[in-house]
Amino acid sequence: MFVLVNLKAYDCDAAAIARAAADVADDAGVRVAVAPQTAELSVVAETGVETFAQHVSPVDHGSHTGSTLAAAVAEYADGTLCNHSERRLRLADIDAAVDAAGSAGLETVVCANNPRQIAAAAALGPDAVAVEPPELIGTGTPVSAADPDIVEGAVAAAGDVDPSVDVYCGAGISAGEDVLAARDLGASGVLLASGVAKADDPRAALEDLVSGL
Amino acid sequence: MFVLVNLKAYDCDAAAIARAAADVADDAGVRVAVAPQTAELSVVAETGVETFAQHVSPVDHGSHTGSTLAAAVAEYADGTLCNHSERRLRLADIDAAVDAAGSAGLETVVCANNPRQIAAAAALGPDAVAVEPPELIGTGTPVSAADPDIVEGAVAAAGDVDPSVDVYCGAGISAGEDVLAARDLGASGVLLASGVAKADDPRAALEDLVSGL
Amino acid sequence: MFVLVNLKAYDCDAAAIARAAADVADDAGVRVAVAPQTAELSVVAETGVETFAQHVSPVDHGSHTGSTLAAAVAEYADGTLCNHSERRLRLADIDAAVDAAGSAGLETVVCANNPRQIAAAAALGPDAVAVEPPELIGTGTPVSAADPDIVEGAVAAAGDVDPSVDVYCGAGISAGEDVLAARDLGASGVLLASGVAKADDPRAALEDLVSGL
Amino acid sequence: MFVLVNLKAYDCDAAAIARAAADVADDAGVRVAVAPQTAELSVVAETGVETFAQHVSPVDHGSHTGSTLAAAVAEYADGTLCNHSERRLRLADIDAAVDAAGSAGLETVVCANNPRQIAAAAALGPDAVAVEPPELIGTGTPVSAADPDIVEGAVAAAGDVDPSVDVYCGAGISAGEDVLAARDLGASGVLLASGVAKADDPRAALEDLVSGL
Repeated sequence: MFVLVNLKAYDCDAAAIARAAADVADDAGVRVAVAPQTAELSVVAETGVETFAQHVSPVDHGSHTGSTLAAAVAEYADGTLCNHSERRLRLADIDAAVDAAGSAGLETVVCANNPRQIAAAAALGPDAVAVEPPELIGTGTPVSAADPDIVEGAVAAAGDVDPSVDVYCGAGISAGEDVLAARDLGASGVLLASGVAKADDPRAALEDLVSGL
Repeated sequence: MFVLVNLKAYDCDAAAIARAAADVADDAGVRVAVAPQTAELSVVAETGVETFAQHVSPVDHGSHTGSTLAAAVAEYADGTLCNHSERRLRLADIDAAVDAAGSAGLETVVCANNPRQIAAAAALGPDAVAVEPPELIGTGTPVSAADPDIVEGAVAAAGDVDPSVDVYCGAGISAGEDVLAARDLGASGVLLASGVAKADDPRAALEDLVSGL
Repeated sequence: MFVLVNLKAYDCDAAAIARAAADVADDAGVRVAVAPQTAELSVVAETGVETFAQHVSPVDHGSHTGSTLAAAVAEYADGTLCNHSERRLRLADIDAAVDAAGSAGLETVVCANNPRQIAAAAALGPDAVAVEPPELIGTGTPVSAADPDIVEGAVAAAGDVDPSVDVYCGAGISAGEDVLAARDLGASGVLLASGVAKADDPRAALEDLVSGL
Repeated sequence: MFVLVNLKAYDCDAAAIARAAADVADDAGVRVAVAPQTAELSVVAETGVETFAQHVSPVDHGSHTGSTLAAAVAEYADGTLCNHSERRLRLADIDAAVDAAGSAGLETVVCANNPRQIAAAAALGPDAVAVEPPELIGTGTPVSAADPDIVEGAVAAAGDVDPSVDVYCGAGISAGEDVLAARDLGASGVLLASGVAKADDPRAALEDLVSGL
């Protein structure tokens, strides 16, 4: 299982969370990555933790002021989210962003809302897709409990299109049991955000998340 | 074969082109549809020609000022384009727009740039997909000649995802031979725009387009 | 005072509301306009009521599939909203849309959220600006009561930039007393939506709105 | 005069250009700032040069995956561009981005295309506005030569709205004489990009730019 912690634009200590994540990943032998603000990719990467961007732009080098260039991100990051529900992209731009990120050596995780969109995302050739029902994001109700069909449907839909694409699930995940439930539904990773970033003790939250693996 | 004439925002006589299209469709026994500006859906529909919208919004009834509501469009139109390269939508919005259009009884044609995106579009459950390489739009060089692989690739990609989805092709089509070439590559329809809308004699252009069918 | 009824994407009978608005405008000698879905501009205009679009695109004739061309809108409409909070535009696009609408002979009303943005909108040369605090839209609490300062501030801000620009106000207006309050704060028109479009008796709602004028 | 070097998404050595800019600024006693990709803000800031972001998002802390948070940018940057013609924002978002950037202690430079939009931008309360006719960007033809009226018009328009707002000009500036011409037209700064970022010798290009000041 892969645990991807999205720090969004939260008011949190990215470096401290990254250090905790690096330690927990080492101790538990579990892949844990942290996705900070783009400006903080360097300080997060310095901790040695696996580092993800939250977004890359569908462009290559050129006149693209204000873009998030995959090649610049890749100086620090190992992978990137794409099309998160808080940063939805046009279909053609997901295609181009996955392409730009892949060319820069970034692992790509394309988010989507439901099995239909997961199938569409998988058709674009990313390394992984992540299903996150928007209505559950930030609720504390794990998608694996509230809507297990959507996870199983996403796993089936992605598998039909391209069995080599990993499927992660997100929304409402905050505890180790949620991670195990996601795994039982066929997911090979989880996305979470406030469960770690807003925790009183992010290290303890991370330890709990990987405790059953 | 289905011939879909997109009038874009061209300076043309939508009602006159619609009447010509209705006549040519009747005479040749070929499906011909006209897609005018939303404001002109009513005058086009009055001619009896099959009428398409150029776009519908991913919304239902509600507080959506400036939207193009599928239910309002469906008072006049039979179908709609979606995600044209000049009006690209976010993946989640294509999904919602196809859903809204279908619920309103509109036939849905989702445009995309390449076979990968065509597969993604087909996964969203439209009635048809249309492949239009943006670099050929408006060139007069038919996609069937310039890039036959992209048409065959689109037909194969859509078929892998959902064999019930029709595949149209566009970009650069202006003559009857282009329509036949598209058919030979596996397309069951063509999209065109300036070839009719900017023709000195739109009726003659339409007659030529269907002449070989 | 000018009363502009925005039908948004509501499930309502646009033609019936337009007929009622035309009658009430005639009877009361007050300017009343109706802004329907673009597809319904023709049926609304046929009633003889002053007709507004909800949006026009920042383009002229050309390859703009899915746009809302000012020239097509102007076949039926007398004016247009621009930059409504449900259809916010980029600054450069407001500039271009106001220009395109003006060239097509449409009266332009640019919406904005606060006096600062009202000043910015007024600088672009529209016929009118409309201040609508997004947090009050649809609440039934009139902006003139909840936040009179924002209306007076908008009137002052627009006047500083260009005294020839009219100032309307919207959000929460549903009764004749709200119209009078808006006038007392310096507005020369009101925008409203659900107060008429969702009323059990739209004609009675309109009559009440203009009753004090 | 202020010289702001926008590195866009160019394939260049941001740290080397930043070091050169820091040296040239010190030697000439001129304000020179460098605006790199967000991911490279930290390495640019480390050189001691004045550092700008190319964009910030119109949000505060919260659930904004993929945003460019002003507070994160401000850990490294001194200021930010906003609404560059390659990253145009909605009017309400310029307002909110200027507000978020100001709250984070960033100097704000809002770009716009023409004097009308410059007036609108100035009304939103930034520290400076920058006029850049899009058709001249990247041409090597300086705006001060091709279209001096637009610079003088921008200076006048901003001054009418708020005399405390500085006016910069951009597009096509690459040599010291262009900087002097801009100053003579009333600008208190220049924006440039390829003239330095794509120069064979960026240090020499910077030295030439400030040579007449």
